[in-house]
Amino acid sequence: MNEIRKDSLIDRYVIIASKRSKRPDSYNKYCEKPDEKVCYFCQSNEHLTPPEIDRIEKGGRWIVRCFPNKFPATSEGKARRMKGGSMPAVGKHEIIVETPEHEGKLHQLSTEHMMKVFDMYNRRVEAIGRMSGVRYVSLFKNYGKDAGASLYHTHTQIIGVPIVPGLVTEEINASKGRCRICDIGRQELRGRRRIRSDENVIAFAPYASRFPFEACLQPKRHITRLSEMSESETRSFAKTLQFILKRLDELMDCAPYNFYLHQSPKGGNLHLHLELIPKMSILAGFELGSGMYINTMPPEEAARYYRTGRI
Amino acid sequence: MNEIRKDSLIDRYVIIASKRSKRPDSYNKYCEKPDEKVCYFCQSNEHLTPPEIDRIEKGGRWIVRCFPNKFPATSEGKARRMKGGSMPAVGKHEIIVETPEHEGKLHQLSTEHMMKVFDMYNRRVEAIGRMSGVRYVSLFKNYGKDAGASLYHTHTQIIGVPIVPGLVTEEINASKGRCRICDIGRQELRGRRRIRSDENVIAFAPYASRFPFEACLQPKRHITRLSEMSESETRSFAKTLQFILKRLDELMDCAPYNFYLHQSPKGGNLHLHLELIPKMSILAGFELGSGMYINTMPPEEAARYYRTGRI
Repeated sequence: MNEIRKDSLIDRYVIIASKRSKRPDSYNKYCEKPDEKVCYFCQSNEHLTPPEIDRIEKGGRWIVRCFPNKFPATSEGKARRMKGGSMPAVGKHEIIVETPEHEGKLHQLSTEHMMKVFDMYNRRVEAIGRMSGVRYVSLFKNYGKDAGASLYHTHTQIIGVPIVPGLVTEEINASKGRCRICDIGRQELRGRRRIRSDENVIAFAPYASRFPFEACLQPKRHITRLSEMSESETRSFAKTLQFILKRLDELMDCAPYNFYLHQSPKGGNLHLHLELIPKMSILAGFELGSGMYINTMPPEEAARYYRTGRI
Repeated sequence: MNEIRKDSLIDRYVIIASKRSKRPDSYNKYCEKPDEKVCYFCQSNEHLTPPEIDRIEKGGRWIVRCFPNKFPATSEGKARRMKGGSMPAVGKHEIIVETPEHEGKLHQLSTEHMMKVFDMYNRRVEAIGRMSGVRYVSLFKNYGKDAGASLYHTHTQIIGVPIVPGLVTEEINASKGRCRICDIGRQELRGRRRIRSDENVIAFAPYASRFPFEACLQPKRHITRLSEMSESETRSFAKTLQFILKRLDELMDCAPYNFYLHQSPKGGNLHLHLELIPKMSILAGFELGSGMYINTMPPEEAARYYRTGRI
């Protein structure tokens, strides 16, 4: 019989349905390239984006670049509550392009380059977090059309919002007093769900993974924001994320995926972590209607694949 | 500036980002047909499904048919809590095929046929709900590959689960005392979000719609389960759902969609409603990481399309 698992932190349930994993639609996804004539994110096309906000250069050319989203979800203004729980979508919506190479993938960057990427993530999250009215900054990546990317060239989005999102609030509430995420990190270090670890970080397949090959990456130390990471910790974080993305790319040619960071809002104490979700399945009627998930790949098997490279 | 709206019932927020609605990826979806050599759900292929559970006939042949899912998410057994919040996935997982026609769509069925469909939905939901260990019965439809259907031939799934799902619990809690769903039905009757109504039912685009062209259909009377509907109410429900699905099909050729029923669990008092979600967008990093949504189509405009047929 299949097993229902409760998330280690929040009130979320998943049916681990390993007997469904041989279904015809499983794991044959690849990253479909959106149709594009001109890539707005390539080198020499900088004039096609809104005015640049920040960049990191190497050898006289940019290697990481940030600019406003042309179609922002949130924008600068005055935060206020309106009737019926509505409010203006105050905040900022930016794009970070991590490499000038059109076909570049994060795991192919040098570790030094990937550390610069995290440096840019951190700079922009902190800058937007200081803006008036912004209560949370969401950093996330959609890679590949099936993962919701409308442009192929790898990029990450940052959206500042005027409320702390529900999922983040639930995690904060679950970690009040003793940090449950510290506990989970220690537990997963010695288990079948460990993907990779070093002196600074641990990556694992979450106990109640919602999606096949879902992974979680977190610092061992109780760190609440990217800005608190040491250089050594950032290196470990960057290398481990690249390791996971490389394995994923080996599993499926040009795998579509999402990842997002959960950081502490101002004054909070949430343990920083990154959740990676390969996009091999579709959230359908059951998930949308119940908030529960059906996952056909037990996290123990997903972790073994990540560790060994063998399915 | 865009607007953030809180769901009328639960603690869920959506950014209504109408300025993003002209993005290149908007509303060009259609229902991709999965690759199939043989359709398991067609007439004359009944021997290819697991043994039939129930059927409704007309003129000597079946027009609605129910059988177990070959790859069930839940199955019969003894419910018990295990260590760490885990439990066996006790329940039942069935398929209802609503027409023997391979290319048939729900809105093309006669109203009488569609009422038989609801009759079968009701029979199977009630039967599974009486099973030992089952605490909730989820009825949902995935239509089209982009909506998560692995088979093209229209069908609906029913999954009995040993817990009341979080989203349903939240709605129950929001309706304690005075029924908020009754209130919402009355309010939407006279507003810009009304899609269609008659003496028995009201359909509207929810105030905090998460998805473009999302729709909600509910009886006016405080009914908690399909089994409480009169024949006249079932006819209204069936006709209104068909009206919405026809409009959707006119908007996008063979539009992929999900719908699901929220009914009361045993002894509960939740106002029955059906939520319909056309699948034109992908849940991506922002939604997965925050539990918030970005919707590029204001529900007021979606409702106007449904009412008038003009975009």
